[in-house]
Amino acid sequence: MLKSFSFDLRVYHEDVDTFGVVYHPNFLKFMERARLEWALAEGHDFHRWEKEGISFTIHSAKLEYTRPAKVYDFLQVASTITEIKRVSLVYEQIIRAPNNPEIVYCKGQIRVVCVDDKFRPRLLPEGFFRK
Amino acid sequence: MLKSFSFDLRVYHEDVDTFGVVYHPNFLKFMERARLEWALAEGHDFHRWEKEGISFTIHSAKLEYTRPAKVYDFLQVASTITEIKRVSLVYEQIIRAPNNPEIVYCKGQIRVVCVDDKFRPRLLPEGFFRK
Amino acid sequence: MLKSFSFDLRVYHEDVDTFGVVYHPNFLKFMERARLEWALAEGHDFHRWEKEGISFTIHSAKLEYTRPAKVYDFLQVASTITEIKRVSLVYEQIIRAPNNPEIVYCKGQIRVVCVDDKFRPRLLPEGFFRK
Amino acid sequence: MLKSFSFDLRVYHEDVDTFGVVYHPNFLKFMERARLEWALAEGHDFHRWEKEGISFTIHSAKLEYTRPAKVYDFLQVASTITEIKRVSLVYEQIIRAPNNPEIVYCKGQIRVVCVDDKFRPRLLPEGFFRK
Repeated sequence: MLKSFSFDLRVYHEDVDTFGVVYHPNFLKFMERARLEWALAEGHDFHRWEKEGISFTIHSAKLEYTRPAKVYDFLQVASTITEIKRVSLVYEQIIRAPNNPEIVYCKGQIRVVCVDDKFRPRLLPEGFFRK
Repeated sequence: MLKSFSFDLRVYHEDVDTFGVVYHPNFLKFMERARLEWALAEGHDFHRWEKEGISFTIHSAKLEYTRPAKVYDFLQVASTITEIKRVSLVYEQIIRAPNNPEIVYCKGQIRVVCVDDKFRPRLLPEGFFRK
Repeated sequence: MLKSFSFDLRVYHEDVDTFGVVYHPNFLKFMERARLEWALAEGHDFHRWEKEGISFTIHSAKLEYTRPAKVYDFLQVASTITEIKRVSLVYEQIIRAPNNPEIVYCKGQIRVVCVDDKFRPRLLPEGFFRK
Repeated sequence: MLKSFSFDLRVYHEDVDTFGVVYHPNFLKFMERARLEWALAEGHDFHRWEKEGISFTIHSAKLEYTRPAKVYDFLQVASTITEIKRVSLVYEQIIRAPNNPEIVYCKGQIRVVCVDDKFRPRLLPEGFFRK
């Protein structure tokens, strides 16, 4: 498992509000895109897990909005896993300018929990973390 | 079955773009809200149909954007069914000012098709149209 | 100013994900709808404020997801203001079943900050709180 | 000006509905992403145009949904300009599998119109089409 993961994306008109800046719930979407790309890069087989009734849901999120991000900007989502428990894990995710990590738009702390098909917490599936 | 259905909604920040006007794909969302509220008012039991593998999908859509709708505005979606076939139906939907039907923001013609759980067209479910 | 505000909404297909439950960023949208309806019920004149370069942005958000909310459900957003400072205020918002306040889907704590047209914090506009 | 433009994207959870397939309004978002990336690749300076009060709005759209696209899929948006008038242009856009152009999910015909800051049609800005 990689220790961290970096994912770039472009801000489109669909993402911004009246003030031409990213509409605040959309940073959660960007963070999920980055977590998903990371998992797919690790070889996670969501299709198989979903057949087995295993999925992932968000337990809680803390977001700090530090600077507006504008339409047409490129953003970088830098992600780290900071806590691993038996049924959940915590991602620290920072959305920043790709070419200047000191320009930070949003910071998030997202707890993801593994659930069965009745949305009950269950162990992370085997093979979630490679050596 | 009612011959037509009227549904009002408010435009929020989530719905608009940089120019403070409704972002064009969102009119399709507003039209779907109106079709759904109409169906629920008719007593359609989507939960039962979904258990039986019956759902509805969009076959095609024609949209004409005639005037920008602004954040905080109320909009009215006026819907009529203009064509009924064995597996599909066509809605004409006009999005306009609630208090002045001559102020039209968007007109749509949406063909909805009934499908089975493999997304193959199938007969509209019994009871879809009441007497 | 009212001490609290209650706002109901319906969950549509646009709001849910693969699992038929509300997609997690959308609870932030529902909370904003409720804050906006509250402000409009109080007579806040956003159009005038925007002309004066006054707007509101999200400083931070804490969200707890406690139970999945399903498509077609009605949800109630119960909002309270728990902290008022010179440039910002905090909303506690609970999204629950309208007919059973013990069924809670999501809890949020949202700090909103008043900003000028350069996104710099500024005093809440006069008349924000009525007597 | 290129004769056509190809743009790839991934389908995320934010894009799909209950049935695990792309929610129909979102194809309009994908088409706009592709038009924007094309324009940016051509060197269009939207920031300057916006300062001059020049923007682009959708006049009309025709969409045909031919096959469901699933979460995690890659999609390719193939775009061509098929008509150029003084104030508007028409894009033909096909969303298909990147590795098999016969797998087509959605076809769109989008008329974009150039407008001034009062949303009145105006001439396409100089330099819109390079030699």
